[in-house]
Amino acid sequence: MASITVPNPLPSPEQDAQDLRKAFQGWGTDEKAIIGILGHRKAAQRAAISETYARLYGESLLQRLHSELSGDFRGAVMLWTADPAERDAKLAHKALKKRDDRHVWVIIEVACASSSDHLMAVRKAYHSLFSSSIEEDVAFKFSETNPLRQLLVRLVSSYRYDGEHVDEEIAKSEAAELHDAIRRRSHAEVIRILSTRNKVQLKETFKHYEQNFGIAIDEDINNQGSSQLFSMLKAIVWCLTSPERHFAEVIRSSILGLGTDEASLTRSIVSRAEIDMKKIKEEYKKRYGTTLNDDVIGDTSGYYKSFLLALVGSADS
Amino acid sequence: MASITVPNPLPSPEQDAQDLRKAFQGWGTDEKAIIGILGHRKAAQRAAISETYARLYGESLLQRLHSELSGDFRGAVMLWTADPAERDAKLAHKALKKRDDRHVWVIIEVACASSSDHLMAVRKAYHSLFSSSIEEDVAFKFSETNPLRQLLVRLVSSYRYDGEHVDEEIAKSEAAELHDAIRRRSHAEVIRILSTRNKVQLKETFKHYEQNFGIAIDEDINNQGSSQLFSMLKAIVWCLTSPERHFAEVIRSSILGLGTDEASLTRSIVSRAEIDMKKIKEEYKKRYGTTLNDDVIGDTSGYYKSFLLALVGSADS
Repeated sequence: MASITVPNPLPSPEQDAQDLRKAFQGWGTDEKAIIGILGHRKAAQRAAISETYARLYGESLLQRLHSELSGDFRGAVMLWTADPAERDAKLAHKALKKRDDRHVWVIIEVACASSSDHLMAVRKAYHSLFSSSIEEDVAFKFSETNPLRQLLVRLVSSYRYDGEHVDEEIAKSEAAELHDAIRRRSHAEVIRILSTRNKVQLKETFKHYEQNFGIAIDEDINNQGSSQLFSMLKAIVWCLTSPERHFAEVIRSSILGLGTDEASLTRSIVSRAEIDMKKIKEEYKKRYGTTLNDDVIGDTSGYYKSFLLALVGSADS
Repeated sequence: MASITVPNPLPSPEQDAQDLRKAFQGWGTDEKAIIGILGHRKAAQRAAISETYARLYGESLLQRLHSELSGDFRGAVMLWTADPAERDAKLAHKALKKRDDRHVWVIIEVACASSSDHLMAVRKAYHSLFSSSIEEDVAFKFSETNPLRQLLVRLVSSYRYDGEHVDEEIAKSEAAELHDAIRRRSHAEVIRILSTRNKVQLKETFKHYEQNFGIAIDEDINNQGSSQLFSMLKAIVWCLTSPERHFAEVIRSSILGLGTDEASLTRSIVSRAEIDMKKIKEEYKKRYGTTLNDDVIGDTSGYYKSFLLALVGSADS
C-alpha cells in the first residue's frame, strides 16, 4: 500500500551516500539528485544511507540537508529522512509546545494511526529527545477540567493488543454502550473503549453500531455538534479504523484553505507514504472527485512539488 | 542490592540442565539439587538454563518442574524460573480475573515498582499470553464510577522517563497541588502527577511536601482515612519511591496474618530477590525489630522454606 517506487537494482548505501555528497558539493545544490535518491528509498534504506553518510563524511546527513536546502522543500526532505519514531516524537513535541490546541491532531494521528510498536518506539524516542514522557507533557498541557486531557493521555499511553482476536459479545455490548454514552455526553466509557480495545475489535464494534442503530458512529458523532471534542472523537474513530479517510480530509483541507497549510500537507504525505498512501489516493478520488496528485500539482511548486509527487507516486496507482 | 548468591566458577547452562535432569529422574525428585541450582542463578542465567534444557530434552523446564514438585514450593520455583516479564504478566492477569479487588496490589507493584522498560516488557508479554492489553483488562474490570479504574489504568499505561532530570519548580508547585488535591478529595491531579512524573522527580516533590507541610505525604495520606483508595495511594507512593517499605510491609503482613499468606510471601520474595532484597531486609529489621529471615524460618517449612531462604540470602547481608 506504499506509494513510493524504489529502483531495481537498488544502489548500495555507500553509492547513495556518495551521490548525495556530490549533490551537495560544487556550485549550488543538485535538488533533483536528492529527490531522485531519498524520494525513492524505504525507511530502512534511508536509515542505512544516513548511517553510511555519517560514517563516510563525519557529518550528519540531516544537518547537511538543513544547510543545503530551504523552505517547505527542506522541511519535507528532513521529516522524510529522519527516523520515523524520532520524526513523530518531534512532531508531537512541537504540537504540545504550541500555546493553542489546534495542533493536537498530531497527537491523535501518532497515537491512533500507528501500530502499537511504532507508538512505543515514539515514546522511547520522546524520552531520549526531551527528557520527559509524552503522556506527562500531554497531561501537563491541559487543565484538570478539560476532557481532552483524559482522552489524549489515554490514547498516547495505550499499547493495544495488535492481533486479530475479536470478541463478538463485547463488540455488541460496547456498540450499545458507545451509543448511549455519546448521547449522555458521558466520556468515561467512550474513552475506555476507544483507548484500550484493539483495532480489529473496534471495527467489529463500529459494524454493530451501524447495524443496530442505523447510523455509522462517525456520522452520529458528527451530528452531536461541532465542538472540538466531537471533531476529535471523529478523527480518533477514523485514525483507528480507516486512517485513509482522516488523511484524505487533512490533505484536502490543507489545500483548500486560504493558502496551502504546508505543515499539514507535508506531515500527512511524509508519514503515510509508506503506510497507506494508495488507499488515501483512492479515498480522495472517491470523496472529492479529483485526484490527490492534481491537487498537489495545483497548489504547490518547485522542488517541494516534485518531492511530494515522488512520495505520492503516480495518480493511478 | 540483590540477595541471591551465584557460585564462582559458574557451571555452564548445559551442565545445569543436565544436573536438573538428573534431579528429576530416578526414585523421587532431588529437591535440594533443584534449590542448589535454580536458587543460585540470576534471571539471564535461568533463561539460558530453560532454553538449553528445552533444546537438550525436548520438554519445557517449567512443565517438568510443575509435574515434579508440589504445593507452595512448586509455586515459588515456577515463578522464579519463569521469564520475569511473563511472570508479572501472569500475576497481573490472575489478579484481574479474581472477582474481588483484594489482589489489585499486584497491579500497583508491577506498574510502580518496576523500571519503565520492565513494565513495557510485561505489557508485551501480556499481549502474547492473553490476546488483550493489560490496560484493557484493568479498565474493563472496574466500573465507570470507581476511582480505582482511572488510577490503575493510568499507572499500568505509563512509560515514565527514567533519567535523572528534575525540575525544581515543578517539584515545588506539584507538592502544593498534591497537598491541596488530597484534601479536596480531587483525584485528577493526584493521578496525573503519580502516573506520569519520573521517579527522581517524584522523590523531589515528596521532599518538598514534607518540608513545606511538615508531614510526609505517605503519613498525610494515611491520616485521610482507611478507604481502599487511600491505602492504594500510600502503596503507590511507596512503590514509586521506596519500594522496600512496601515489600517489607507485604512480607510482614503475609506472615502475621492468621496462617501465612503464601501467595504474597512468594510473590514479594521472588520478584524482589534480584532487585532490592537487601534494602527490604534492612527496612524489615528497622521497622519490626526482627529479621526477615527469622520470620520466614518461623512461619514456613520444608523445601519451601529452604528455597525462600536461598532467595533472601543470609540475615546480615
